[in-house]
Amino acid sequence: MLQETIVALSTPSGNGAIAVIRLSGENALAVADAIFKGKKLTDQEGHTAHFGRIMDGSVVVDEVVATVFKTPRSYTREDVVEISCHNSTYIIEKILKLCLSAGARLAKAGEFTLRAFLNGGMDLSQAEAVADLIASDSSASHELAMKQMRGKFSDEIKELRKELIHFASLIELELDFSEEDVEFADRQDLKDLVNKLQTPITNLMESFALGNVLKNGVPVVISGKPNVGKSTLLNLLLNDERAIVSDIPGTTRDTIEDEISIKGITFRFIDTAGIRETKDKIEAIGVERTFEQIRKSAIILLVFDPTETDPAELKKNRQTLLELVDGEKTHLITIANKADKPEVREALKPFDLKDQVIPISAKASENIPMLVNALLDAVSHDKVNQESTVVSNARHFHALEETHISLNDVLTGLDQGIEGDFLAVDIKRALHYLGEITGEITNEDLLDNIFSKFCIGK
Amino acid sequence: MLQETIVALSTPSGNGAIAVIRLSGENALAVADAIFKGKKLTDQEGHTAHFGRIMDGSVVVDEVVATVFKTPRSYTREDVVEISCHNSTYIIEKILKLCLSAGARLAKAGEFTLRAFLNGGMDLSQAEAVADLIASDSSASHELAMKQMRGKFSDEIKELRKELIHFASLIELELDFSEEDVEFADRQDLKDLVNKLQTPITNLMESFALGNVLKNGVPVVISGKPNVGKSTLLNLLLNDERAIVSDIPGTTRDTIEDEISIKGITFRFIDTAGIRETKDKIEAIGVERTFEQIRKSAIILLVFDPTETDPAELKKNRQTLLELVDGEKTHLITIANKADKPEVREALKPFDLKDQVIPISAKASENIPMLVNALLDAVSHDKVNQESTVVSNARHFHALEETHISLNDVLTGLDQGIEGDFLAVDIKRALHYLGEITGEITNEDLLDNIFSKFCIGK
Repeated sequence: MLQETIVALSTPSGNGAIAVIRLSGENALAVADAIFKGKKLTDQEGHTAHFGRIMDGSVVVDEVVATVFKTPRSYTREDVVEISCHNSTYIIEKILKLCLSAGARLAKAGEFTLRAFLNGGMDLSQAEAVADLIASDSSASHELAMKQMRGKFSDEIKELRKELIHFASLIELELDFSEEDVEFADRQDLKDLVNKLQTPITNLMESFALGNVLKNGVPVVISGKPNVGKSTLLNLLLNDERAIVSDIPGTTRDTIEDEISIKGITFRFIDTAGIRETKDKIEAIGVERTFEQIRKSAIILLVFDPTETDPAELKKNRQTLLELVDGEKTHLITIANKADKPEVREALKPFDLKDQVIPISAKASENIPMLVNALLDAVSHDKVNQESTVVSNARHFHALEETHISLNDVLTGLDQGIEGDFLAVDIKRALHYLGEITGEITNEDLLDNIFSKFCIGK
Repeated sequence: MLQETIVALSTPSGNGAIAVIRLSGENALAVADAIFKGKKLTDQEGHTAHFGRIMDGSVVVDEVVATVFKTPRSYTREDVVEISCHNSTYIIEKILKLCLSAGARLAKAGEFTLRAFLNGGMDLSQAEAVADLIASDSSASHELAMKQMRGKFSDEIKELRKELIHFASLIELELDFSEEDVEFADRQDLKDLVNKLQTPITNLMESFALGNVLKNGVPVVISGKPNVGKSTLLNLLLNDERAIVSDIPGTTRDTIEDEISIKGITFRFIDTAGIRETKDKIEAIGVERTFEQIRKSAIILLVFDPTETDPAELKKNRQTLLELVDGEKTHLITIANKADKPEVREALKPFDLKDQVIPISAKASENIPMLVNALLDAVSHDKVNQESTVVSNARHFHALEETHISLNDVLTGLDQGIEGDFLAVDIKRALHYLGEITGEITNEDLLDNIFSKFCIGK
């Protein structure tokens, strides 16, 4: 258990009324008492707040409130003092320096949460969720992080691991009696159990696409021929003038990203260069980028002008796009733009509107709610079950993948009738990876890697 | 007394681990209880901290610590709850909105401190010091604000006011018995008393120059002919490459400002265009700016090259500068630059070095500590007495000025033997202005003006 006393500014720096400096460790109370003039904090009950003065010798540095938390009832499970002072750079630096002189050292990024983990206050997946929670800026990403911090995801992983341990113990038992050639674990039962485990693991792995999208935003590509009004549509959605709009085909050469939050879900809109054969080199690069963006997108908005594109061509274009992407994961929404013009409405007639063609006018801002609903539908179609657990962390996804591969190796081994000790190796690998998610299995590199991504003071 | 419950984010927004949302007012505890799932905060003792969850209906918004302060033992002297939550924009906005739904309203800038003042927690001068304290970025400005917040300045003003009230009461007594033509207040005694009062008031007024300088930094102008090395010296002092250094005379056309803190005192260095007769229009504007800067400075560094300027010319230049400024308030430090060159050291011989000429080499960084000491001496010469009270607030200075004028009117009245009731008018004016400093006399405009300069959440 770490015992050094650490200190850091836990609130952001900038313009504000108060700042909070956090001390944690064996000597947190002693360090605070060395610089705090008021009641002796060491003698106070946990969860109490005390007015007093921070002193630099005989000089008053600030009038503060010090809140005492006593081990194990604190965030880090160690003794903690939070000093709430006036938010002046000078005062903050002075108090930090005084804490250092009194025996504390500056906390590293994430060190408070690392201690919470090491002292058993939370498991690794929950600790990671704290960082996600702080970074959350939409209700969907917030909900994900909150669920994870409260341990729902960990519980599910722990449950899977328990079943796997049960399975492993049967195999181990066999190994102990190997000379008697007894099969404690009926091979078919084992196969059924592994298959049963693969289902939730696969579900969790599949949820990562959604989890990633909810955490980082849903990538939406706006695609279509030059001059069909893609930039105008993007601007309308963003309510902003980010893209350069002009009547010259091929104006938008860079992919421009911006985000909006609709009903708690963040959509990242990506404007693209028009797709068409071109001899302009710069524009050609733009087109290549467009393909790249399309491949990575969750939703494609295909914008077309019905006076220029007939139903057959549209069908072909839809086909081309769907071939570029994994059809099951990417949603294609087809939009007939410029529908404010009579000739466009006339040209729309041969199209089968049930065929998911949404007529809008970006310029006249017509029918936009219909488009917005289509965007939301595309996401909630994935969401399926609000209650299901969603993986949003790439590290967790990777560990699940490795677990999945190990269990497949077990299944293959069972099919080939290999020895129990070989099966045991694969099962232990699976256990290892599941354990890495919750931190039951850890190593220092892994911890460093996770906690260095935190901000200082957490 | 204000009773509406107000809420605001009290910590800065930006990158950090935790944020503090502050509630104050009659229903602060009830508002917090409406959204906090944990112990009922209304039933808790003051100065206690409680772990719990902020709920939006059945959805968990965050796990937080709520600290309860009960009237009158709080910053505002009202019931206060401070919610320490994870520092996510989403969470902060959500909690603020939940507080609004539960009956709080958003606090205006400085409203918490305004309440502290209105509820008798501090006087006006102390409340103003809170804003200064937050803005303080050097030990000198911090010390000023801290002293003022702790009431030292207020005590002195209250003491002056008490003596003046005694004086006024004697005059009032005379008025009551005016028909009997009794003089309760001996005219010479009254004159002595007013004269006695004028001394500390004048001292306080004079301290404003220093107070302003300590709060906002000491303005130091670097002056001298073109190409004597002013920019090199400035860069050396700033340890930075802000000014354009070249060998072409007249390169530096803009006044450039930067600050350094030496032993807790902030010096604002101002580089200037060289002073010489010029036909270049742009440079002429630069020269005019130089004069302006010189007039506003507390210290002038006059840099010269002894191979180009003889003692007689230097004397003339010093004279010119001292005529530009108020000789008593501005310190002139004369610097012979390029003293690393033998010919310069030779040329220095006819100068009387006791005449405050400091030989340095900005290029070779020679003798700079001597210059730095001269800068510190120029300020501490003013500082006189560390313990004396220093006025740093323009509003206070103005009120002292008005008091001073009113008391002079009293003295003139006494000399002219005017009636007691006329004397009383001037005395009341003096009392009014002194009262405005501490807030014993206030009006809404004054309060609005003071507190609107605060940040939100204080």
